[in-house]
Amino acid sequence: MIDVNQYFDGAVKSLGYTSAEGKTTVGVMEPGEYEFGTSQHETMTVLEGELHILLPHGEAFQSYTNGQTFEVEANVTFKVKASLQTSYLCKYR
Amino acid sequence: MIDVNQYFDGAVKSLGYTSAEGKTTVGVMEPGEYEFGTSQHETMTVLEGELHILLPHGEAFQSYTNGQTFEVEANVTFKVKASLQTSYLCKYR
Repeated sequence: MIDVNQYFDGAVKSLGYTSAEGKTTVGVMEPGEYEFGTSQHETMTVLEGELHILLPHGEAFQSYTNGQTFEVEANVTFKVKASLQTSYLCKYR
Repeated sequence: MIDVNQYFDGAVKSLGYTSAEGKTTVGVMEPGEYEFGTSQHETMTVLEGELHILLPHGEAFQSYTNGQTFEVEANVTFKVKASLQTSYLCKYR
């Protein structure tokens, strides 16, 4: 099954599925600022566009662009700023 | 705007947006066999999973997996077989 998810009044949309390795989503964010909470470890890759990420315990936003990856631990919140429409891949495992 | 698209009775779903460089979609395919038509040149990257692709003028299906890319010219049809749920990035330009 392919789940269609919407967050922040549709400003972030994702498609989710669960493979043998675990849950994965592909998604798109509209320009904006968001705060996400994690329930599992996440590995996010920016596919096109750019995300500025403030991780827990981080002191400043860091930029991630085409093909760059960052990891977020479980059970935390992190902040995201997108200045462009940005697509991403997120692996939950 | 982020468009939500469904094809083949929901077996293929994608999220589309248009950046300064052109239209892009991220999508997921359920296991199955599909035939797609193109209206523009497309560059597809498999994100997770595996697609077997038969391009126009191709003689045999070729496998593309994590991070691998293939291109399809405009105004043709091509065949896709997925044996796993597979996520992809497609750039139309």
